[in-house]
Amino acid sequence: MQLNQQEIQGLDKEFRRAFINSLAGFRQAVLVGSISAQGQSNLAIFNSLIHLGANPALFGLINRPDSVQRDTLQNIESQGVYTLNYVSGADYQKAHQTSARYPQGVSEFEQVGFEEEYHSQFAAPFVADAIVQIAMKFEERIDITLNGTILIVGSVQEIIVDNSIVAADGFVNLSEAGVLVSQGLDAYFTTSPLGRLPYAKP
Amino acid sequence: MQLNQQEIQGLDKEFRRAFINSLAGFRQAVLVGSISAQGQSNLAIFNSLIHLGANPALFGLINRPDSVQRDTLQNIESQGVYTLNYVSGADYQKAHQTSARYPQGVSEFEQVGFEEEYHSQFAAPFVADAIVQIAMKFEERIDITLNGTILIVGSVQEIIVDNSIVAADGFVNLSEAGVLVSQGLDAYFTTSPLGRLPYAKP
Repeated sequence: MQLNQQEIQGLDKEFRRAFINSLAGFRQAVLVGSISAQGQSNLAIFNSLIHLGANPALFGLINRPDSVQRDTLQNIESQGVYTLNYVSGADYQKAHQTSARYPQGVSEFEQVGFEEEYHSQFAAPFVADAIVQIAMKFEERIDITLNGTILIVGSVQEIIVDNSIVAADGFVNLSEAGVLVSQGLDAYFTTSPLGRLPYAKP
Repeated sequence: MQLNQQEIQGLDKEFRRAFINSLAGFRQAVLVGSISAQGQSNLAIFNSLIHLGANPALFGLINRPDSVQRDTLQNIESQGVYTLNYVSGADYQKAHQTSARYPQGVSEFEQVGFEEEYHSQFAAPFVADAIVQIAMKFEERIDITLNGTILIVGSVQEIIVDNSIVAADGFVNLSEAGVLVSQGLDAYFTTSPLGRLPYAKP
Protein backbone atom coordinates (compact mmCIF):
# COMPACT_ATOMS: atom_id res chain seq x y z
CA MET A 1 0.00 0.00 0.00
CA GLN A 2 1.03 3.59 -0.62
CA LEU A 3 -0.60 6.20 1.59
CA ASN A 4 -0.02 9.93 1.49
CA GLN A 5 -0.48 12.32 4.40
CA GLN A 6 -4.12 13.00 3.59
CA GLU A 7 -4.92 9.29 3.30
CA ILE A 8 -3.15 8.63 6.62
CA GLN A 9 -5.25 11.38 8.23
CA GLY A 10 -8.37 9.75 6.76
CA LEU A 11 -7.73 6.33 8.30
CA ASP A 12 -9.95 4.98 11.03
CA LYS A 13 -8.56 6.28 14.35
CA GLU A 14 -7.86 2.87 15.91
CA PHE A 15 -6.36 1.52 12.68
CA ARG A 16 -4.08 4.57 12.41
CA ARG A 17 -2.97 4.24 16.02
CA ALA A 18 -1.95 0.59 15.57
CA PHE A 19 -0.49 1.27 12.11
CA ILE A 20 1.73 4.25 13.01
CA ASN A 21 2.78 2.83 16.38
CA SER A 22 3.82 -0.50 14.89
CA LEU A 23 5.41 1.20 11.88
CA ALA A 24 7.88 2.89 14.25
CA GLY A 25 9.46 -0.55 14.58
CA PHE A 26 11.10 -2.61 17.28
CA ARG A 27 12.19 -1.10 20.57
CA GLN A 28 13.45 -2.01 23.99
CA ALA A 29 10.64 -2.90 26.39
CA VAL A 30 11.48 -1.22 29.70
CA LEU A 31 9.64 -1.34 33.00
CA VAL A 32 9.91 2.03 34.71
CA GLY A 33 9.77 1.86 38.50
CA SER A 34 8.86 4.98 40.47
CA ILE A 35 7.40 6.04 43.80
CA SER A 36 5.03 8.83 44.81
CA ALA A 37 5.51 11.42 47.55
CA GLN A 38 3.10 9.25 49.62
CA GLY A 39 5.32 6.18 49.17
CA GLN A 40 3.09 4.45 46.63
CA SER A 41 5.19 2.39 44.20
CA ASN A 42 4.40 2.33 40.49
CA LEU A 43 5.55 0.17 37.58
CA ALA A 44 4.79 0.96 33.93
CA ILE A 45 5.97 -0.44 30.62
CA PHE A 46 7.51 2.05 28.19
CA ASN A 47 8.74 1.37 24.68
CA SER A 48 10.43 4.71 24.16
CA LEU A 49 13.86 4.36 25.78
CA ILE A 50 16.39 6.59 24.00
CA HIS A 51 20.17 6.54 24.18
CA LEU A 52 21.29 10.17 24.42
CA GLY A 53 24.94 9.79 25.35
CA ALA A 54 27.56 7.61 27.02
CA ASN A 55 29.68 10.29 28.72
CA PRO A 56 27.86 11.24 30.84
CA ALA A 57 25.47 8.32 30.48
CA LEU A 58 22.10 9.87 29.60
CA PHE A 59 18.89 8.08 28.59
CA GLY A 60 15.58 9.60 27.50
CA LEU A 61 11.97 8.46 27.73
CA ILE A 62 8.98 9.80 25.80
CA ASN A 63 5.94 10.37 27.95
CA ARG A 64 2.36 11.07 26.91
CA PRO A 65 0.85 13.04 29.80
CA ASP A 66 -2.71 12.13 28.80
CA SER A 67 -1.95 8.41 29.04
CA VAL A 68 -1.69 5.79 31.77
CA GLN A 69 1.96 6.92 32.02
CA ARG A 70 0.92 10.13 33.81
CA ASP A 71 1.58 8.64 37.28
CA THR A 72 5.13 7.79 36.26
CA LEU A 73 5.76 11.32 35.00
CA GLN A 74 4.38 12.83 38.19
CA ASN A 75 6.53 10.54 40.37
CA ILE A 76 9.68 11.24 38.35
CA GLU A 77 9.16 15.01 38.53
CA SER A 78 8.27 15.06 42.21
CA GLN A 79 10.83 12.52 43.50
CA GLY A 80 13.62 13.03 40.97
CA VAL A 81 14.47 9.31 40.74
CA TYR A 82 13.24 6.26 38.85
CA THR A 83 14.48 2.86 37.72
CA LEU A 84 14.72 1.12 34.34
CA ASN A 85 14.28 -2.66 34.33
CA TYR A 86 14.56 -5.14 31.45
CA VAL A 87 12.85 -8.48 31.86
CA SER A 88 12.88 -11.81 30.06
CA GLY A 89 10.70 -12.59 27.05
CA ALA A 90 9.06 -15.23 29.26
CA ASP A 91 7.54 -12.38 31.31
CA TYR A 92 5.88 -10.58 28.40
CA GLN A 93 2.34 -11.05 29.67
CA LYS A 94 3.17 -9.62 33.10
CA ALA A 95 5.09 -6.75 31.50
CA HIS A 96 2.14 -5.88 29.22
CA GLN A 97 -0.27 -6.01 32.14
CA THR A 98 1.52 -3.04 33.77
CA SER A 99 -0.08 -0.90 31.03
CA ALA A 100 -3.55 -1.40 32.54
CA ARG A 101 -5.13 1.69 34.06
CA TYR A 102 -5.00 0.74 37.74
CA PRO A 103 -6.28 3.26 40.31
CA GLN A 104 -3.61 5.60 41.71
CA GLY A 105 -3.48 3.91 45.11
CA VAL A 106 -2.60 0.53 43.62
CA SER A 107 0.90 -0.81 42.92
CA GLU A 108 1.35 -2.52 39.56
CA PHE A 109 4.12 -4.61 41.17
CA GLU A 110 1.55 -6.43 43.31
CA GLN A 111 -1.14 -6.49 40.67
CA VAL A 112 0.90 -8.08 37.90
CA GLY A 113 3.23 -10.15 40.07
CA PHE A 114 6.67 -8.59 39.79
CA GLU A 115 8.56 -8.42 43.07
CA GLU A 116 9.48 -4.93 44.26
CA GLU A 117 13.09 -4.50 45.42
CA TYR A 118 14.97 -1.64 47.04
CA HIS A 119 18.75 -1.39 47.23
CA SER A 120 21.76 0.88 46.90
CA GLN A 121 20.00 3.39 49.22
CA PHE A 122 17.97 4.38 46.17
CA ALA A 123 14.42 5.67 46.77
CA ALA A 124 12.74 4.18 43.68
CA PRO A 125 11.79 0.49 43.40
CA PHE A 126 13.56 -1.99 41.12
CA VAL A 127 12.05 -5.14 39.63
CA ALA A 128 13.66 -8.04 41.52
CA ASP A 129 15.48 -10.52 39.27
CA ALA A 130 15.31 -8.19 36.25
CA ILE A 131 18.08 -8.95 33.73
CA VAL A 132 19.14 -5.30 33.81
CA GLN A 133 18.43 -2.79 36.60
CA ILE A 134 19.36 0.87 36.13
CA ALA A 135 18.94 3.63 38.73
CA MET A 136 18.14 6.97 37.07
CA LYS A 137 18.16 10.59 38.23
CA PHE A 138 15.75 13.02 36.55
CA GLU A 139 17.70 15.78 34.80
CA GLU A 140 15.43 17.70 32.46
CA ARG A 141 11.94 17.79 31.00
CA ILE A 142 11.73 18.86 27.37
CA ASP A 143 8.26 19.62 26.04
CA ILE A 144 7.63 18.73 22.41
CA THR A 145 5.05 21.40 21.74
CA LEU A 146 4.04 20.05 18.31
CA ASN A 147 1.94 17.32 19.92
CA GLY A 148 2.21 17.75 23.69
CA THR A 149 4.55 14.83 24.35
CA ILE A 150 7.41 15.12 26.81
CA LEU A 151 11.02 13.97 26.61
CA ILE A 152 12.27 13.02 30.09
CA VAL A 153 16.05 13.20 30.22
CA GLY A 154 17.78 11.26 33.00
CA SER A 155 21.31 10.37 34.02
CA VAL A 156 22.42 6.85 34.87
CA GLN A 157 23.25 6.55 38.58
CA GLU A 158 23.84 2.84 38.92
CA ILE A 159 23.82 -0.25 36.71
CA ILE A 160 23.24 -3.80 37.91
CA VAL A 161 23.77 -6.54 35.34
CA ASP A 162 25.24 -10.03 35.54
CA ASN A 163 28.93 -10.23 34.62
CA SER A 164 28.20 -13.26 32.46
CA ILE A 165 26.42 -11.17 29.81
CA VAL A 166 28.99 -8.34 29.62
CA ALA A 167 31.64 -8.97 26.95
CA ALA A 168 35.30 -7.97 27.38
CA ASP A 169 34.75 -4.86 25.22
CA GLY A 170 31.71 -3.70 27.22
CA PHE A 171 28.94 -5.06 24.96
CA VAL A 172 25.92 -6.25 26.96
CA ASN A 173 24.58 -9.47 25.46
CA LEU A 174 20.85 -8.87 25.96
CA SER A 175 19.89 -11.31 23.22
CA GLU A 176 21.65 -14.21 24.94
CA ALA A 177 19.80 -13.28 28.13
CA GLY A 178 16.45 -13.45 26.29
CA VAL A 179 15.54 -9.80 26.96
CA LEU A 180 12.05 -8.72 25.90
CA VAL A 181 11.57 -6.50 22.83
CA SER A 182 8.32 -4.76 21.86
CA GLN A 183 6.66 -3.28 18.79
CA GLY A 184 3.65 -1.01 18.68
CA LEU A 185 1.09 -1.21 21.45
CA ASP A 186 0.83 -4.93 22.05
CA ALA A 187 3.43 -7.07 20.22
CA TYR A 188 6.36 -8.77 21.94
CA PHE A 189 9.48 -10.52 20.68
CA THR A 190 12.84 -12.02 21.50
CA THR A 191 15.85 -11.64 19.21
CA SER A 192 18.16 -13.88 17.17
CA PRO A 193 21.67 -12.55 16.57
CA LEU A 194 22.94 -11.97 13.02
CA GLY A 195 26.37 -10.81 14.20
CA ARG A 196 28.51 -7.96 15.43
CA LEU A 197 30.54 -6.02 12.88
CA PRO A 198 33.83 -4.11 13.11
CA TYR A 199 33.86 -0.30 13.01
CA ALA A 200 32.96 0.56 9.39
CA LYS A 201 35.65 2.21 7.25
CA PRO A 202 35.22 3.56 3.71
CA MET B 1 28.39 -6.32 38.24
CA GLN B 2 27.13 -3.30 40.10
CA LEU B 3 28.56 0.04 39.01
CA ASN B 4 27.75 3.42 40.47
CA GLN B 5 28.01 6.74 38.65
CA GLN B 6 31.60 7.31 39.70
CA GLU B 7 32.63 3.82 38.61
CA ILE B 8 30.88 4.31 35.26
CA GLN B 9 32.79 7.59 34.81
CA GLY B 10 36.00 5.77 35.60
CA LEU B 11 35.58 3.09 32.92
CA ASP B 12 37.86 2.99 29.91
CA LYS B 13 36.34 5.33 27.29
CA GLU B 14 35.87 2.69 24.58
CA PHE B 15 34.49 0.17 27.07
CA ARG B 16 32.00 2.74 28.42
CA ARG B 17 30.88 3.69 24.91
CA ALA B 18 30.11 0.06 23.97
CA PHE B 19 28.65 -0.67 27.42
CA ILE B 20 26.22 2.27 27.65
CA ASN B 21 25.21 2.14 23.97
CA SER B 22 24.43 -1.58 24.13
CA LEU B 23 22.77 -1.22 27.54
CA ALA B 24 20.17 1.06 25.92
CA GLY B 25 18.81 -2.10 24.33
CA PHE B 26 17.26 -3.13 21.04
CA ARG B 27 16.03 -0.58 18.53
CA GLN B 28 14.79 -0.26 15.00
CA ALA B 29 17.64 0.00 12.47
CA VAL B 30 16.65 2.72 10.01
CA LEU B 31 18.46 3.95 6.91
CA VAL B 32 17.94 7.69 6.55
CA GLY B 33 18.05 8.94 2.95
CA SER B 34 18.73 12.61 2.30
CA ILE B 35 20.06 14.91 -0.41
CA SER B 36 22.24 18.04 -0.29
CA ALA B 37 21.55 21.43 -1.89
CA GLN B 38 24.05 20.35 -4.56
CA GLY B 39 22.05 17.18 -5.30
CA GLN B 40 24.43 14.78 -3.57
CA SER B 41 22.51 11.84 -2.09
CA ASN B 42 23.34 10.46 1.34
CA LEU B 43 22.37 7.32 3.24
CA ALA B 44 23.12 6.75 6.94
CA ILE B 45 22.08 4.15 9.49
CA PHE B 46 20.42 5.46 12.64
CA ASN B 47 19.27 3.46 15.66
CA SER B 48 17.36 6.26 17.35
CA LEU B 49 13.95 6.29 15.67
CA ILE B 50 11.30 7.55 18.12
CA HIS B 51 7.52 7.31 17.88
CA LEU B 52 6.18 10.70 18.99
CA GLY B 53 2.56 10.44 17.93
CA ALA B 54 0.05 8.87 15.54
CA ASN B 55 -2.25 11.84 14.96
CA PRO B 56 -0.54 13.62 13.34
CA ALA B 57 2.06 10.94 12.62
CA LEU B 58 5.33 12.27 14.05
CA PHE B 59 8.66 10.46 14.36
CA GLY B 60 11.88 11.67 15.97
CA LEU B 61 15.56 10.94 15.38
CA ILE B 62 18.46 11.66 17.70
CA ASN B 63 21.45 13.19 15.94
CA ARG B 64 24.98 13.68 17.20
CA PRO B 65 26.31 16.68 15.27
CA ASP B 66 29.95 15.71 15.88
CA SER B 67 29.45 12.29 14.28
CA VAL B 68 29.33 10.86 10.77
CA GLN B 69 25.61 11.75 10.93
CA ARG B 70 26.40 15.46 10.45
CA ASP B 71 25.79 15.32 6.66
CA THR B 72 22.31 13.91 7.27
CA LEU B 73 21.47 16.69 9.74
CA GLN B 74 22.70 19.36 7.33
CA ASN B 75 20.68 17.89 4.45
CA ILE B 76 17.51 17.59 6.54
CA GLU B 77 17.78 21.17 7.78
CA SER B 78 18.62 22.65 4.37
CA GLN B 79 16.22 20.59 2.20
CA GLY B 80 13.44 19.95 4.73
CA VAL B 81 12.84 16.37 3.56
CA TYR B 82 14.28 12.92 4.21
CA THR B 83 13.29 9.27 4.02
CA LEU B 84 13.21 6.38 6.51
CA ASN B 85 13.88 2.91 5.13
CA TYR B 86 13.81 -0.47 6.89
CA VAL B 87 15.73 -3.30 5.30
CA SER B 88 15.94 -7.06 5.75
CA GLY B 89 18.20 -8.75 8.28
CA ALA B 90 19.97 -10.28 5.28
CA ASP B 91 21.29 -6.78 4.43
CA TYR B 92 22.86 -6.08 7.83
CA GLN B 93 26.40 -5.79 6.52
CA LYS B 94 25.45 -3.26 3.85
CA ALA B 95 23.36 -1.33 6.37
CA HIS B 96 26.26 -1.16 8.85
CA GLN B 97 28.66 -0.04 6.11
CA THR B 98 26.66 3.21 5.66
CA SER B 99 28.13 4.27 9.03
CA ALA B 100 31.63 4.58 7.47
CA ARG B 101 32.99 8.12 7.22
CA TYR B 102 32.87 8.58 3.44
CA PRO B 103 33.96 11.94 1.98
CA GLN B 104 31.13 14.46 1.50
CA GLY B 105 31.05 14.14 -2.30
CA VAL B 106 30.42 10.39 -2.14
CA SER B 107 27.02 8.66 -2.04
CA GLU B 108 26.70 5.82 0.46
CA PHE B 109 24.06 4.28 -1.84
CA GLU B 110 26.71 3.55 -4.48
CA GLN B 111 29.45 2.70 -2.00
CA VAL B 112 27.54 0.08 -0.02
CA GLY B 113 25.33 -1.21 -2.84
CA PHE B 114 21.79 -0.08 -2.02
CA GLU B 115 19.86 1.15 -5.05
CA GLU B 116 18.68 4.78 -4.88
CA GLU B 117 15.06 5.35 -5.85
CA TYR B 118 12.96 8.49 -6.33
CA HIS B 119 9.18 8.54 -6.46
CA SER B 120 6.02 10.33 -5.34
CA GLN B 121 7.60 13.62 -6.57
CA PHE B 122 9.61 13.55 -3.34
CA ALA B 123 13.04 15.20 -3.39
CA ALA B 124 14.87 12.80 -1.03
CA PRO B 125 16.05 9.33 -2.11
CA PHE B 126 14.49 6.07 -0.93
CA VAL B 127 16.21 2.70 -0.67
CA ALA B 128 14.77 0.60 -3.53
CA ASP B 129 13.14 -2.66 -2.37
CA ALA B 130 13.19 -1.58 1.30
CA ILE B 131 10.51 -3.39 3.34
CA VAL B 132 9.21 -0.05 4.60
CA GLN B 133 9.72 3.35 2.92
CA ILE B 134 8.56 6.52 4.70
CA ALA B 135 8.77 10.05 3.29
CA MET B 136 9.37 12.60 6.08
CA LYS B 137 9.10 16.38 6.33
CA PHE B 138 11.37 18.17 8.81
CA GLU B 139 9.25 19.96 11.43
CA GLU B 140 11.44 21.02 14.33
CA ARG B 141 14.94 20.81 15.76
CA ILE B 142 15.13 20.47 19.54
CA ASP B 143 18.57 20.90 21.09
CA ILE B 144 19.29 18.78 24.15
CA THR B 145 21.71 21.18 25.78
CA LEU B 146 22.84 18.72 28.50
CA ASN B 147 25.09 16.93 26.01
CA GLY B 148 24.74 18.72 22.68
CA THR B 149 22.60 16.10 20.96
CA ILE B 150 19.69 17.08 18.74
CA LEU B 151 16.17 15.72 18.45
CA ILE B 152 14.94 16.02 14.86
CA VAL B 153 11.13 15.99 14.76
CA GLY B 154 9.51 15.10 11.44
CA SER B 155 6.02 14.42 10.12
CA VAL B 156 5.14 11.39 8.02
CA GLN B 157 4.27 12.43 4.45
CA GLU B 158 3.92 9.07 2.75
CA ILE B 159 4.19 5.39 3.69
CA ILE B 160 4.99 2.58 1.27
CA VAL B 161 4.67 -0.94 2.65
CA ASP B 162 3.43 -4.21 1.16
CA ASN B 163 -0.23 -4.98 1.89
CA SER B 164 0.73 -8.52 2.79
CA ILE B 165 2.40 -7.45 6.06
CA VAL B 166 -0.35 -5.06 7.26
CA ALA B 167 -2.93 -6.80 9.46
CA ALA B 168 -6.64 -5.97 9.39
CA ASP B 169 -6.27 -3.82 12.54
CA GLY B 170 -3.32 -1.82 11.15
CA PHE B 171 -0.46 -3.73 12.78
CA VAL B 172 2.61 -3.90 10.52
CA ASN B 173 4.18 -7.35 10.74
CA LEU B 174 7.84 -6.35 10.56
CA SER B 175 9.00 -9.58 12.21
CA GLU B 176 7.41 -11.76 9.51
CA ALA B 177 9.14 -9.59 6.91
CA GLY B 178 12.52 -10.20 8.62
CA VAL B 179 13.19 -6.51 9.35
CA LEU B 180 16.62 -5.67 10.77
CA VAL B 181 16.98 -4.71 14.45
CA SER B 182 20.12 -3.24 16.02
CA GLN B 183 21.72 -2.89 19.45
CA GLY B 184 24.58 -0.65 20.42
CA LEU B 185 27.12 0.39 17.81
CA ASP B 186 27.61 -2.84 15.89
CA ALA B 187 25.19 -5.67 16.77
CA TYR B 188 22.34 -6.81 14.50
CA PHE B 189 19.36 -9.09 14.99
CA THR B 190 16.10 -10.40 13.63
CA THR B 191 13.10 -11.09 15.85
CA SER B 192 10.97 -14.06 16.90
CA PRO B 193 7.37 -13.29 17.90
CA LEU B 194 6.13 -14.13 21.40
CA GLY B 195 2.62 -12.85 20.70
CA ARG B 196 0.28 -9.90 20.57
CA LEU B 197 -1.85 -9.17 23.62
CA PRO B 198 -5.25 -7.54 24.07
CA TYR B 199 -5.52 -4.04 25.57
CA ALA B 200 -4.64 -4.52 29.24
CA LYS B 201 -7.39 -3.97 31.82
CA PRO B 202 -7.01 -3.97 35.61
